[in-house]
Amino acid sequence: MIATDVATGQLKGASRALPADYVNNGFFGQDILSVRQFDRAKLQYIYRVADEMRSLVNRFGKANLLEGKILANLFYEPSTRTSSSFQAAMYRLGGRCISINEVHYSSVTKGESLPDTVRTLESYCDLTVLRHPQKGAAEIAARYARKPLINAGDGTGEHPTQALLDIYTIEDDLHRLDGLKVAMMGDLKYGRTVHSLTRLLGLYNTQFYFVAPESLHLPEEILAEVRASGQPFAELQSVDEIIGDIDVLYMTRVQKERFENPEEYERLGRLFVVDPALMARAKSDMILMHPLPRVYEIAMEVDDDPRAAYFRQMENGMYIRMALLAAVLGKA
Amino acid sequence: MIATDVATGQLKGASRALPADYVNNGFFGQDILSVRQFDRAKLQYIYRVADEMRSLVNRFGKANLLEGKILANLFYEPSTRTSSSFQAAMYRLGGRCISINEVHYSSVTKGESLPDTVRTLESYCDLTVLRHPQKGAAEIAARYARKPLINAGDGTGEHPTQALLDIYTIEDDLHRLDGLKVAMMGDLKYGRTVHSLTRLLGLYNTQFYFVAPESLHLPEEILAEVRASGQPFAELQSVDEIIGDIDVLYMTRVQKERFENPEEYERLGRLFVVDPALMARAKSDMILMHPLPRVYEIAMEVDDDPRAAYFRQMENGMYIRMALLAAVLGKA
Amino acid sequence: MIATDVATGQLKGASRALPADYVNNGFFGQDILSVRQFDRAKLQYIYRVADEMRSLVNRFGKANLLEGKILANLFYEPSTRTSSSFQAAMYRLGGRCISINEVHYSSVTKGESLPDTVRTLESYCDLTVLRHPQKGAAEIAARYARKPLINAGDGTGEHPTQALLDIYTIEDDLHRLDGLKVAMMGDLKYGRTVHSLTRLLGLYNTQFYFVAPESLHLPEEILAEVRASGQPFAELQSVDEIIGDIDVLYMTRVQKERFENPEEYERLGRLFVVDPALMARAKSDMILMHPLPRVYEIAMEVDDDPRAAYFRQMENGMYIRMALLAAVLGKA
Repeated sequence: MIATDVATGQLKGASRALPADYVNNGFFGQDILSVRQFDRAKLQYIYRVADEMRSLVNRFGKANLLEGKILANLFYEPSTRTSSSFQAAMYRLGGRCISINEVHYSSVTKGESLPDTVRTLESYCDLTVLRHPQKGAAEIAARYARKPLINAGDGTGEHPTQALLDIYTIEDDLHRLDGLKVAMMGDLKYGRTVHSLTRLLGLYNTQFYFVAPESLHLPEEILAEVRASGQPFAELQSVDEIIGDIDVLYMTRVQKERFENPEEYERLGRLFVVDPALMARAKSDMILMHPLPRVYEIAMEVDDDPRAAYFRQMENGMYIRMALLAAVLGKA
Repeated sequence: MIATDVATGQLKGASRALPADYVNNGFFGQDILSVRQFDRAKLQYIYRVADEMRSLVNRFGKANLLEGKILANLFYEPSTRTSSSFQAAMYRLGGRCISINEVHYSSVTKGESLPDTVRTLESYCDLTVLRHPQKGAAEIAARYARKPLINAGDGTGEHPTQALLDIYTIEDDLHRLDGLKVAMMGDLKYGRTVHSLTRLLGLYNTQFYFVAPESLHLPEEILAEVRASGQPFAELQSVDEIIGDIDVLYMTRVQKERFENPEEYERLGRLFVVDPALMARAKSDMILMHPLPRVYEIAMEVDDDPRAAYFRQMENGMYIRMALLAAVLGKA
Repeated sequence: MIATDVATGQLKGASRALPADYVNNGFFGQDILSVRQFDRAKLQYIYRVADEMRSLVNRFGKANLLEGKILANLFYEPSTRTSSSFQAAMYRLGGRCISINEVHYSSVTKGESLPDTVRTLESYCDLTVLRHPQKGAAEIAARYARKPLINAGDGTGEHPTQALLDIYTIEDDLHRLDGLKVAMMGDLKYGRTVHSLTRLLGLYNTQFYFVAPESLHLPEEILAEVRASGQPFAELQSVDEIIGDIDVLYMTRVQKERFENPEEYERLGRLFVVDPALMARAKSDMILMHPLPRVYEIAMEVDDDPRAAYFRQMENGMYIRMALLAAVLGKA
C-alpha cells in the first residue's frame, strides 16, 4: 500500500545525491517535483544554463549533450504544448524520446499501476517526465523511481517547469527580478501557474497585485505565503488603476465552467481582457504574459506588440527544459 | 478576426523570400501550400532533388542534411500514410519530428486556436507540416507562421505533396511528361488527388481521359482549367475503348457513401475496377497508379504486375518530401 | 484472396535467406514470427548478442549499429510496454522509429488492408514490428512483406520476443537452463506467454510444475508438446508443496473476466498470489518472474526481494529486442 500524504518538495533519497557544492548545483540525479526545491542560487544557475542552451540552439540548432539518452515522456492526460516542449528540448540535446500519450487512467488501479509503469519505463529510459491529473502523483512516482523524474503537472498540484519558464522570461526580458511590480490577472483561484510563479517571485522583492473577480481570488494558502515572505501585495478587482505602473501583467483565462451563473460569467469575463486600448496605457517597457492557450482574454491584435511575451514564453520553455534535462543527467 | 477568403496559391510575404534565381530555385523559406506554386522549372528542380534523395537513401539509408532540425508534424485528422511519410523523410534527412496526432479539432475555437497552435510549435521546431479537415486552413496557418509550413491536405482543398509524388512517379517510370495519354478513373468529383494531378499535368502536353460514373464527374471548375490550358480531353463512362492506348491509368476509389442508393453503388462501383483481364489489354509500358488506400478497386492479383506503380508511388512520396523539406530549409 | 490457414513457424521464402552457417546464424533478412523458429544454437546466439547489447548500453548508453535505419512500429492494439521496448531498442541502436498506435482495426477490411499497410510502411522503413489482435496476422503480413517483420504478439497466437526475454532472464540470472525446476502459476489456459516459454524450455531439460485453478489448466495442445519432448511435468492446484524446491516461479494473473462466477474468482484468485510469507519458504537462489502488468498477484512488498526478477525482465526485453533487430538487419 502506498501512503499518499507526502510532504511536498522533499528531494529524493540521499543515495543518489552528490554534495551540494557539486558543479551543477546539486541537480545531478535529482527529481524536479516542485518550485519549493529552488532557491535564488539554483534559479540563477538554471537561468544561465538556459541562456547557454538558447545560444547553442541559435548557432547550431542543437547541442549533443544527451546523445544516447532516452526520455520517457509519460502523459496520463493530454498536453500537446508541454509534451512537445519536452520532446523538442530532448531532441535539441541530441537525445531521444518515447512519448506515451495514451495511458488510460484508471482510478481503480492508480495506486498500484503508476509506480509499476514508471519502473517499467525506467528499464528502457534514462529519465521520466510525468504528467498526471492527480495531485501528488509525481511525488509518489518519484519515490519508486530509480532514475530522475520531472513533474510536468500533477493536477491541482505543481507544474514547476511552467513556473521556471515564466520567471526566466521575466528575467530575460526585464534583466532583473528584484523590485518589480507584477500584476496577476484573471482566474487566480484555480490557476496553478499563478500559484507557482507567485512562490518563485516570493524569493525576490516583488510588489504583487492580484486582480480577479471576487469568486476567483488567490487561495488563502498562497496569500499566507506572500504575507510570510514579507512582500507587499494588493488585491484588486480591476487592473485599471495600476496598468500604467506595472512591469509585468500575467494573464490567465477566466473559464466559463467556474461560474454557476452564465450571466455572471458574461458580466465578469469581459472585464478581464487585454486589448490594444489597455496596452496603450501600459508602460513601454512592461511585458504581457500568458501561459497559453488563450481564448479571448488577449485580443489577437496585441500579438504584434513587442511587449507581448507569450510566444517568447513558449520558446523559453524549451530552453528551461533543456537546462533541467541536462542538469539532472549531470551534463549541464 | 481572420479573413478566410484568401487568394489561393499566394506565396508568403516577401520578407523571407530570396531572389528567384537563388540556387535552390526560390524554395528557401517558402511555404508549400498549393500545386499552383509550381511551374515546369520548379517541378524539374524537385524531381532532380528527389532523384538525389533516392540515391542517398539507397546507398547510405540517409542524408544528414537536416541534422539538428525539428519538424512539427501537426495532424488535425488522422492520416497514417502521409504522417509516416513525412516522418520517414525527416528521419532520412537526419532530422527529428514532433508528431501531434491527437489535436481535438473544435469548430468553436478554430479561428483562434490554429494560428496559436502553429506559432507555439514554431517556438520549438524549424518547420511545420499541417493536415487539417478545413479547406483554406493551411493558408490561414501560413499567414501567421514565421517558419515554413507545408500543406499535407486541407479538406477539399489541396494536398500538393501527393500531386508531386504522383507526377514524379510518372516522370520516373516513363521518363517523360509531354505527350502522354492519361486516364483518371473512379470518383473524379471528390478525389482531391485527381484535381491536383490534373492541374500539374496541365503544365505538360497531356491527352486526358476522365472516366467516371455520371454522378462523379470531374467538377466544372477543374474542367474549365483543362480547357483553358488547351489540353485535349474526353469524358467517358468506361475505360474499355481506350485501355489499349493509354500511358497512365490513375485509379481512385468510388466510395459507397457517395451514393444515395446502395444498388446504384453496387451496379456502378464494379465497373470501375482493375483486374488482370483489364491489364492484359493495356500497353506493356503503361503504368497503373492509385493514391492508396485501395479497397476493392484494384485486385490484389495485379500487385505483382510490374506496371502496378502504387507502391512505388509510396516510396517516391518519401523522396519528394525529402526534397521539399530540404528545399524549404535551404539545404537541397 | 489470402489463405489464412498457414503452417506456423514457417520462415520467409528462400530468396532472402543466406546459408545457415552465415555468421549471424541465419537471422539476416528473416522474419521473427514464432518461438518455433528457434533451436538451442539460435537461442544461444541471441543470448550472447543480448549480453553484448547490455554491455554497450551500460558503457555508452547506445550502439550505433542501426544508424540510418527506420523501424515501423505498427500496433493494431495498444501495448505501451512492448511498443516502448521496441522503440528503446531501436533508439539505443542509433535507429529511428515510426510508431503507429492508432490503427483502427476493422474486421471488414482486415484481409485486404493489413498487407497493404505493411507494404506501404515498408516503402519508408527498413523493417516492421507488428502487434495485431488476430491470430496468424503476423504470418499473413510477413508473406506480403519484402523486408523483415517481427511479431510483437498476434492475439492468442505467439509473442516470441516476450518468450525470448523470459528465457534469457532465466539464463542470465541462474547461469544455466538445463536441469531447472520451473513452476508456472496462475492462468495457464489463456496465458500466451506461458505457452511460448514452455515451448522454449522444452528445448532444455526442464522439470515443469503447472499450478492453476482447474478451469485454467494448460491447454492439452501445449501439454502434448511437453509430453512429446519427454520433459517431466506435474499439474498442481497449489504451489505450496513445491515452493521450497523450485528454481523459477513464473506468475501470471488470474483475470476476473475468465470466471462466470464472481465468487469462484474471489475464492480461487487469492490462492494464486505471491507474498513475502511465500517467498520466505522459497530457495535463496530461485527467481520470481512475471510478464507484467501485475495487479494484485504479486504483493508490492516482494519488489525489493533480490529474487524478484520482473523489472529485470523488462530491461532484458530491451536487450533481446536490440539483438533481434540487429540480427535481422545483418548488423549483430
